[in-house]
Amino acid sequence: MKLVQKRSKKTGLSPGTLIHIGEQRADMVSITLFTYSGSQCDERAVVDPNDLRLPVDETVTWVNISGVHKVDVLEAFGKQFDLHPLLLEDIANTDQRPKLDDYETSVFLVMKMLTMDDRGNLLVEQVSFVLGRNYVLSFQENGTDVFRPVRDRLRGGKGRLRQHGSDYLLYALVDAVVDQYFAVLEALGEQIESLQERVTADPKPDTLKHIHALKRQLLFVRRAVWPLREAMSNLSRSECPFLHEPTKLFFRDVYDHVVHVVDTIETLREMVSASLEMYLSSVSYRLNAVMRVLTVITTIFMPLSFIASIYGMNFEHMPELKWEWGYPLILGMMGLVAGGMLIGFRQRKWL
Amino acid sequence: MKLVQKRSKKTGLSPGTLIHIGEQRADMVSITLFTYSGSQCDERAVVDPNDLRLPVDETVTWVNISGVHKVDVLEAFGKQFDLHPLLLEDIANTDQRPKLDDYETSVFLVMKMLTMDDRGNLLVEQVSFVLGRNYVLSFQENGTDVFRPVRDRLRGGKGRLRQHGSDYLLYALVDAVVDQYFAVLEALGEQIESLQERVTADPKPDTLKHIHALKRQLLFVRRAVWPLREAMSNLSRSECPFLHEPTKLFFRDVYDHVVHVVDTIETLREMVSASLEMYLSSVSYRLNAVMRVLTVITTIFMPLSFIASIYGMNFEHMPELKWEWGYPLILGMMGLVAGGMLIGFRQRKWL
Amino acid sequence: MKLVQKRSKKTGLSPGTLIHIGEQRADMVSITLFTYSGSQCDERAVVDPNDLRLPVDETVTWVNISGVHKVDVLEAFGKQFDLHPLLLEDIANTDQRPKLDDYETSVFLVMKMLTMDDRGNLLVEQVSFVLGRNYVLSFQENGTDVFRPVRDRLRGGKGRLRQHGSDYLLYALVDAVVDQYFAVLEALGEQIESLQERVTADPKPDTLKHIHALKRQLLFVRRAVWPLREAMSNLSRSECPFLHEPTKLFFRDVYDHVVHVVDTIETLREMVSASLEMYLSSVSYRLNAVMRVLTVITTIFMPLSFIASIYGMNFEHMPELKWEWGYPLILGMMGLVAGGMLIGFRQRKWL
Amino acid sequence: MKLVQKRSKKTGLSPGTLIHIGEQRADMVSITLFTYSGSQCDERAVVDPNDLRLPVDETVTWVNISGVHKVDVLEAFGKQFDLHPLLLEDIANTDQRPKLDDYETSVFLVMKMLTMDDRGNLLVEQVSFVLGRNYVLSFQENGTDVFRPVRDRLRGGKGRLRQHGSDYLLYALVDAVVDQYFAVLEALGEQIESLQERVTADPKPDTLKHIHALKRQLLFVRRAVWPLREAMSNLSRSECPFLHEPTKLFFRDVYDHVVHVVDTIETLREMVSASLEMYLSSVSYRLNAVMRVLTVITTIFMPLSFIASIYGMNFEHMPELKWEWGYPLILGMMGLVAGGMLIGFRQRKWL
Amino acid sequence: MKLVQKRSKKTGLSPGTLIHIGEQRADMVSITLFTYSGSQCDERAVVDPNDLRLPVDETVTWVNISGVHKVDVLEAFGKQFDLHPLLLEDIANTDQRPKLDDYETSVFLVMKMLTMDDRGNLLVEQVSFVLGRNYVLSFQENGTDVFRPVRDRLRGGKGRLRQHGSDYLLYALVDAVVDQYFAVLEALGEQIESLQERVTADPKPDTLKHIHALKRQLLFVRRAVWPLREAMSNLSRSECPFLHEPTKLFFRDVYDHVVHVVDTIETLREMVSASLEMYLSSVSYRLNAVMRVLTVITTIFMPLSFIASIYGMNFEHMPELKWEWGYPLILGMMGLVAGGMLIGFRQRKWL
Repeated sequence: MKLVQKRSKKTGLSPGTLIHIGEQRADMVSITLFTYSGSQCDERAVVDPNDLRLPVDETVTWVNISGVHKVDVLEAFGKQFDLHPLLLEDIANTDQRPKLDDYETSVFLVMKMLTMDDRGNLLVEQVSFVLGRNYVLSFQENGTDVFRPVRDRLRGGKGRLRQHGSDYLLYALVDAVVDQYFAVLEALGEQIESLQERVTADPKPDTLKHIHALKRQLLFVRRAVWPLREAMSNLSRSECPFLHEPTKLFFRDVYDHVVHVVDTIETLREMVSASLEMYLSSVSYRLNAVMRVLTVITTIFMPLSFIASIYGMNFEHMPELKWEWGYPLILGMMGLVAGGMLIGFRQRKWL
Repeated sequence: MKLVQKRSKKTGLSPGTLIHIGEQRADMVSITLFTYSGSQCDERAVVDPNDLRLPVDETVTWVNISGVHKVDVLEAFGKQFDLHPLLLEDIANTDQRPKLDDYETSVFLVMKMLTMDDRGNLLVEQVSFVLGRNYVLSFQENGTDVFRPVRDRLRGGKGRLRQHGSDYLLYALVDAVVDQYFAVLEALGEQIESLQERVTADPKPDTLKHIHALKRQLLFVRRAVWPLREAMSNLSRSECPFLHEPTKLFFRDVYDHVVHVVDTIETLREMVSASLEMYLSSVSYRLNAVMRVLTVITTIFMPLSFIASIYGMNFEHMPELKWEWGYPLILGMMGLVAGGMLIGFRQRKWL
Repeated sequence: MKLVQKRSKKTGLSPGTLIHIGEQRADMVSITLFTYSGSQCDERAVVDPNDLRLPVDETVTWVNISGVHKVDVLEAFGKQFDLHPLLLEDIANTDQRPKLDDYETSVFLVMKMLTMDDRGNLLVEQVSFVLGRNYVLSFQENGTDVFRPVRDRLRGGKGRLRQHGSDYLLYALVDAVVDQYFAVLEALGEQIESLQERVTADPKPDTLKHIHALKRQLLFVRRAVWPLREAMSNLSRSECPFLHEPTKLFFRDVYDHVVHVVDTIETLREMVSASLEMYLSSVSYRLNAVMRVLTVITTIFMPLSFIASIYGMNFEHMPELKWEWGYPLILGMMGLVAGGMLIGFRQRKWL
Repeated sequence: MKLVQKRSKKTGLSPGTLIHIGEQRADMVSITLFTYSGSQCDERAVVDPNDLRLPVDETVTWVNISGVHKVDVLEAFGKQFDLHPLLLEDIANTDQRPKLDDYETSVFLVMKMLTMDDRGNLLVEQVSFVLGRNYVLSFQENGTDVFRPVRDRLRGGKGRLRQHGSDYLLYALVDAVVDQYFAVLEALGEQIESLQERVTADPKPDTLKHIHALKRQLLFVRRAVWPLREAMSNLSRSECPFLHEPTKLFFRDVYDHVVHVVDTIETLREMVSASLEMYLSSVSYRLNAVMRVLTVITTIFMPLSFIASIYGMNFEHMPELKWEWGYPLILGMMGLVAGGMLIGFRQRKWL
Repeated sequence: MKLVQKRSKKTGLSPGTLIHIGEQRADMVSITLFTYSGSQCDERAVVDPNDLRLPVDETVTWVNISGVHKVDVLEAFGKQFDLHPLLLEDIANTDQRPKLDDYETSVFLVMKMLTMDDRGNLLVEQVSFVLGRNYVLSFQENGTDVFRPVRDRLRGGKGRLRQHGSDYLLYALVDAVVDQYFAVLEALGEQIESLQERVTADPKPDTLKHIHALKRQLLFVRRAVWPLREAMSNLSRSECPFLHEPTKLFFRDVYDHVVHVVDTIETLREMVSASLEMYLSSVSYRLNAVMRVLTVITTIFMPLSFIASIYGMNFEHMPELKWEWGYPLILGMMGLVAGGMLIGFRQRKWL
């Protein structure tokens, strides 16, 4: 994942100009339409967004759009649902900070969907929601199937979902996205736990790289979740007429979840920092151990070698050389020196 | 204790679906019921929660539930006490951030109970309270007997407890949980004190692991206590009609305790960080000491060995070798070199 | 770029005295004038600022001034547009913190334009805007052509720009400046990514210098952007009568962009800090590797040399010297010692 | 001083139960009573607190109690002065966070008295004040004579003290306690200054211990003073009817002092951290110096010894050995090698 | 400069007692008096402060007092200008935190004047201002001539100064003091820039001392400027009747300057921290370089010396010794070993 998204193609364009920013993640744009009330639920695929009409009756309409890279599709939505140009621009620009914007006829919410692929890489995808009096539009970058449970519940007709309005539908969708955050944190948490065991047992540069990769992923997760706190808090206290009091209780619950996620992210960040500290401490402790071995070896053998080299000198007059017990005496002396050294090291707890 | 709780079994479920999250800590669910007024106090075990009724008279009812993993029990309570589905969900999910939620007919408080087992491990258990006009429901994960003093006081009938309403009972229960925090901090504080002594005397990798274990425990304690501050502050200034002014003074007192606990946690965290700094400084100071020994040994014996090796050369024309006093002269010279070195080291304060 | 701008020539002057502070970046002052309404658009160069008049009709006037080092030009503007002396002083002083000041007849906005030159150096230039009921004055230090797209749109007459008042023109200009921030962050982000790869592969002092140069640039970017947050927030909620409600939505959008930029800066700063940590860890890990080699070599050869030096002693009575198999025996013993050492090292994972 | 006070004896007790927490610092409880108005001042010792009566006339009564470990004494006060049970509990519990509590008939203030004993150890003692309409109760742990100047001024009758009410008396007492903070900071400041000189001159483990002892003391001081800021701010803006407007000016002054103390504590903390950094830098610089010596010695003598050992080999055919000038030639060569090395080291600035 | 000012002589004194705290910086107290209106300006030295009278007409009076160590002079001012005892105390106590106090008949402002002496030492001096309806009193510790430009402008009569009231005079004086801050930051900024170059080129303990001296100076500057932010913000929004709306615009400008100074201080602090990081990294990189040299030398010469010492052994049966080409063969082998080592080191990039 890139630290900073490429936006350069936008520089210099008129603010209202619709242009897609970010990687293209889907080939086609697929649009599905749900229309439901307490008693019935219609579901169909939409080919041409220009066929859609702003619903006027009391049924709830949910349009889910996968793929935001086709500017003409977005423009069709803008025309049919009377969306503000800035709102459309924000949908097309996938490098958006999560936020809640109140427009007169609709509420606009941008958030990030987090998933983990099979190899433990974090995927960040933008999801935008437009809430109207009796409709919800949801825009995904590609069709990551996070809304399937919601669809199933709509089809099944059980539970509260079909009995409530568009605001409760928005809650169900947002809740599905936030639930994914816990799954991602669970995976990261497990990686960190296993990392902390490795870090003292065998501190290698690879461990260091892993620590920094985790740090970076947590940074991305934090950037995706942190601003959502404020957005959810605003949503649960919004004055907007489409949001009914009982539903706000549910958004307050989502807000609590988001705060909990933010707390957990901070905990994980502290644990990663602690891992780095332990890595560095282990490396420096090992250096100490290595140096102690070096010093012990040097300190023992240098004096011994020195004694030996003295008796390797070729002076003519070295009386010791002629003593019959010279050699064993010297060997004994060497043993005494080495033994004394070893005792000294033991007392300093170096051995 | 795990950094992140497993919630995956919940992903994709309808928001209102009751499901237990967290480890199951008790085998059975046990329910005890207290009904008391100033003059009398009844106590009995409840087998079927469906037998309970929302109390209508002026006696105070306290139902304590140990074990929240049985979804049907919770649902029975939900039906009998008319509890909001989100409230029930929060009770069943033991990975909850401490919080206070105001529902129309009840106040809901989640907090964490902290205890230390015999081997100094921190145990974190969730306790939830539902306060109604004339009843309190308390949900524990298992029956850690932290409420025994409250029960004893109810039975004894002395003190303020029996004279006051359900709000004062809630205060007594919350106070009992917060009192445990001080005991946990006391234990952690003692561990840190003893750690700080060991850290300079004998810095081993085990010490490092202990430092990080303490850091981690403090992180968990902080996560459990920090959000309670806001909850208690809200409780002591709540507009809720079941909370009487005199009782709010008591909640303000609990709030002060929680703030004091938070302060103490921060102090302990700083002390643990200081321990880590001292550990690292000690390790690097010891490295210095080791290197100094190595350098002194090398610096003394290398020149001496070099001199000896010169006179070990086999040149035919080396006049010194034939001097009668050559050998003692060289030994003297070596002594002078070594002595000079030692004086130099002493001046640099290396010895 | 300097940490602190020279302001000394101002010390001791009367507060209202106009004096240019900062480097002079343009030779001449060039002034261009746009007058437009929905149906037409005039454009001309202005030689003498005293010829300008405060516009009274409903057309919108935009005067762009490149070069703020000529005090008499600023004074002419001050007279013709009735600008407050402090406002003029702030334009002339290019070491200004971004801010929004509300004067009675005008709104004054100072911001920083950020660009990257070809060699990757950050250039910071001050841009000031004065917004009146039907005019905008924009002051640049030199003519960096960041406003060309706005000019093109004015000439082309397409889009919203010509249909709206001076407040929307101000938005278009501010948006053009903020768009540049993303380009600068993109460039910095790429430098940091490439840095992180080099930092573990080959940690050299040059890498360290690069890290600190990036840190410094991010510090400058932060100083330039951070205060803009508040200015944009105030602008989007301003009570000023020239700012119409629909335009405030656009300024809210700019505010969102600025917050996004600030977030990204913080992320980049964390990544740079992480690079420094990785650099230091790599250096200390390499030290470890080097020391291990040293210790292995020393530990193997010191005992061997010691053995050899024993049999280099010249004692007359050294029976081993006369054994027929003495030499190969000793060589074999040396091989055993060396082999044992190697096995020991392998077990400690030093090899 | 302990990181965490023992509170365990309180766990499980009814909230209103009076119990002393903390070390007992005085043997007996001594009570002194001052009754004064502008014209006269009575002073006497009180033996039985039950003899005290809530004063009803316009004289001001000050009761100073030294020793809070006798629960019955506190209860007597509670009865005579109609004090809230929680207030009494807070007086008896000397492990209290500084705070201001508004009760209906009185204002309750807890703060910490800081003193330094002769050996530079920090002593922390709790002082509690109860302010009523025409009385002040002050509770000390033991009789540290910090209120002597106030007593002297009362006896002398000069200055404002005797002319004002109980609120001004409270101010005089609080001011006396806060004045002590400056004395403590002065002593700590001097210790830090002297530490900073030692830290580069001679970095020993003892210095490190001293740094951490100072850090710890500052932590205790901060914990004692920080919450007082809010308490003083509340006091100077209190709506309480016993606090007259002119006296609030004086409390604002105390607030300013407390803020100043907090600022100074932060400065001292930064200086202590800087000392630690300097200690670590000095240690690592010294390591560098030691290693340089080791390397220079090794680099010079290893090649020389190698050369000597070559000519110590016993090959039969080594022509150099028979040259007449072989020995001096080799010695000269050794000199050249050593000289070259020395020049090289000088160029690298290692010598 | 001392970390903590001596205040001990104040401990125990009655709060209203006037006593000078801080170093005495001037021998005598000199008082100058300006009385001016739009058309005229009188200037004279005052010998006895008791001769001064509170001005009653519409002229503006400015009294500048150099030297605050004479308590009787301050008392005379207190009497003549009806100043609150706490205000006088704050003037006499030069260890004051910058602040703004609103008294009924006057506004009191304390700030710090910062100057650099010729050797680059920071000097901090306290300046206090009392603003009345038609007068300003300014108290300096000694006569550092920072107000000369204001005096010159008063004498010259040009500009706004003579046309406005006492509030504008206060602005002019405060602005003169704040202008000095920029000069001090400029000097510190230059020192930091030059430091950063030295830090990588030649990291010596002296550099470290310089870094910490700068850190300390910035700490003092921050302490002096930071609280001024709030004071200036309050001043520019004050409800006080002597402060006219147009002058508040000027104080808002000073507020902007102070915020800019605070920002710059934070930048400089980050740069100093970065210098410390670079210093430590350089030291540890150099250690690495030194150790590499040591290891290379040891690794090359130890095996060579070992080989030589083998053939220095005195065994009778060492066939190699008798080979005719033994000596050159061994020399060749040594060359091969050394060459192989060198190639190995080059591959590891150690050379």
